[in-house]
Amino acid sequence: MIYLDNAATTRPNEHALERANAFLHDTFYNPSALYRGGVSAHAELEAARSELLGYIGDPSRFSLLFTSGGTEGDNQALFFARRGNVVTTAGEHAAVYESATELKNRGVEPRFAPVERDGRVNEEALLSLVDSSTALVSVVHVNNETGAVNDISSLARAVKRKNPRTLFHSDGVQAFGKLPFRLPPDVDLYTVSAHKIGGLKGTGALIKRKELALRPLLFGGGQEGGLRSGTENMFGIEVFRYAAEETFASLEKNSVHLRGLRERLFSRLEGTLTRISPEDGSPYILTVSAEGMRGEVLQRMLWDRGVVAGTGSACSSKHRFSRVLTACGYPERVLDGVLRLSFSPETGEEEIDRAAEAILAAVQEYKERV
Amino acid sequence: MIYLDNAATTRPNEHALERANAFLHDTFYNPSALYRGGVSAHAELEAARSELLGYIGDPSRFSLLFTSGGTEGDNQALFFARRGNVVTTAGEHAAVYESATELKNRGVEPRFAPVERDGRVNEEALLSLVDSSTALVSVVHVNNETGAVNDISSLARAVKRKNPRTLFHSDGVQAFGKLPFRLPPDVDLYTVSAHKIGGLKGTGALIKRKELALRPLLFGGGQEGGLRSGTENMFGIEVFRYAAEETFASLEKNSVHLRGLRERLFSRLEGTLTRISPEDGSPYILTVSAEGMRGEVLQRMLWDRGVVAGTGSACSSKHRFSRVLTACGYPERVLDGVLRLSFSPETGEEEIDRAAEAILAAVQEYKERV
Repeated sequence: MIYLDNAATTRPNEHALERANAFLHDTFYNPSALYRGGVSAHAELEAARSELLGYIGDPSRFSLLFTSGGTEGDNQALFFARRGNVVTTAGEHAAVYESATELKNRGVEPRFAPVERDGRVNEEALLSLVDSSTALVSVVHVNNETGAVNDISSLARAVKRKNPRTLFHSDGVQAFGKLPFRLPPDVDLYTVSAHKIGGLKGTGALIKRKELALRPLLFGGGQEGGLRSGTENMFGIEVFRYAAEETFASLEKNSVHLRGLRERLFSRLEGTLTRISPEDGSPYILTVSAEGMRGEVLQRMLWDRGVVAGTGSACSSKHRFSRVLTACGYPERVLDGVLRLSFSPETGEEEIDRAAEAILAAVQEYKERV
Repeated sequence: MIYLDNAATTRPNEHALERANAFLHDTFYNPSALYRGGVSAHAELEAARSELLGYIGDPSRFSLLFTSGGTEGDNQALFFARRGNVVTTAGEHAAVYESATELKNRGVEPRFAPVERDGRVNEEALLSLVDSSTALVSVVHVNNETGAVNDISSLARAVKRKNPRTLFHSDGVQAFGKLPFRLPPDVDLYTVSAHKIGGLKGTGALIKRKELALRPLLFGGGQEGGLRSGTENMFGIEVFRYAAEETFASLEKNSVHLRGLRERLFSRLEGTLTRISPEDGSPYILTVSAEGMRGEVLQRMLWDRGVVAGTGSACSSKHRFSRVLTACGYPERVLDGVLRLSFSPETGEEEIDRAAEAILAAVQEYKERV
């Protein structure tokens, strides 16, 4: 199968799995245990933490806590707001969007800024929603449905200029390991996930400004400096660490490679499919639409032709139309036909060419059958 | 190493890991994806859910949601209470105890029933704390520090007799797969964890009465029937499933085997060490005290002699004395010297004999050195 649904989840990285194997066999100890085995497990945990943080943040300014994934990180960030309002966007992943919506039940007013056609937030509209009562602003770094990149560094700066007490959070799940990026001092909280870069589902991290007195979401044994109780998912954390090591070592190379493949793929689809992803977006995502057709039907036809494609965020597959793409302003005939083609550094040219052929053939078959 | 800290975490089950391997290589798809690979991953998820639930609950009465571990399950259960009071015990794991304490900040009064010398809750005292405003009662099934077993079926019945609207939760982390048990209709919520029975850290489940309208702790993509958002940790869930299959297939045999080993071990330590675990407690835990000595020092001496022993709950290793054992009423000279020896079905007779020798030798060395 040619796997082009890497934004939903990636195939776990084999080398990372092998290197993490010790945590299944020899170093399976509880990192809270005080004997030598526990102490080594704990040292590995701290090494993983510092490596993962080091890729994007200055360790004198930021710290990192391990979570069960992107959703938990986003929830912990959003629920840190306890009063006033929270400003976010119509382009957020459900983990932020639904948490913001839930805040209403907790006495915090959620405000949603509109997005542009490509999925980027309308910056002016976002800033106009920030006022003296804004506890937190949350803007996704890379839109998971279109690949559009928000300039969170400049947004965070603008937010702080308007209200220095407002916290700035970003969901970086589709950006981590994929975009060259260092956390600027104005970003307070940043969520990442392992299974989008060759790690395992069930592992993620929340990066926070060091002095920020974050509140825990989970209470108990006091792990993660009291901010995230629960025995640490050591195997998942180690796979994350080693997968990130490879990803970050070739981040620039991967970017160039995938930008090339993305455009190669689109050049073959152009004329038949409508492009939704912007050219200056993430090289990992090409979202297109077969207007007037049903994306899920095409998706199944593609599976039969050996190509795995997404139709939008896997997490929101319950609704006919994508909430995010609807907010981008597309009409129903475009929304219906959405295919999200998302890549990994392992995706090759030959695969892209075969995928393009399969997509064009599926569209042709669709036209003939329907 | 002779590993006798299985109550802290177990060595992952090799067969279970092998069988779950498909989820790292071939079936790594996101179970929310609508193409065939996603649909199969989802079917496997549902099969795992129904198998795991089936071991202890009637699927027509109960449902199971996957969590990131025991701590998350306990938190979700405790934070379901939004008003009145919550009654729990002084013998709880930190995941329940600290969540109950946090409830104070959320307008819910936590009440803690005292425990007996062996760690079991004082039932009369517990029931006397339940009144018309009690939203939830939470009682640990097997005390993780002493192995004492609470009769949660009878307790749940008694609680419902006093207030039929009160929910009953139990942390079953040290009981699942270790005690013969079926969930009675009076238990509303029950927490289990994978890494205490050969699964991986970072995986667990919360079992709930089917019609109970539980609230999510994590919001987002709506996985787990909307009760626990976040991409499912498929590998962890599959390892859990296969590890549980083995554990439950030999539950009775393991019980007899380990009860024999536990008593064999204690018979060799008797006279030198004070017994804390009750004879009718979990066969998996023997907690003893080398009175007047320091447990952590003995623990390190034992490591050097090839024996891995606990000193109490790994999760509460920040305090000199165990909160739970202090509540049991032991004096400092007993609390200081606590060793928790906890077994797995793989623990053998010869290991127990060598461990007994090592413990006696370490105690002797301690006396000579200190």
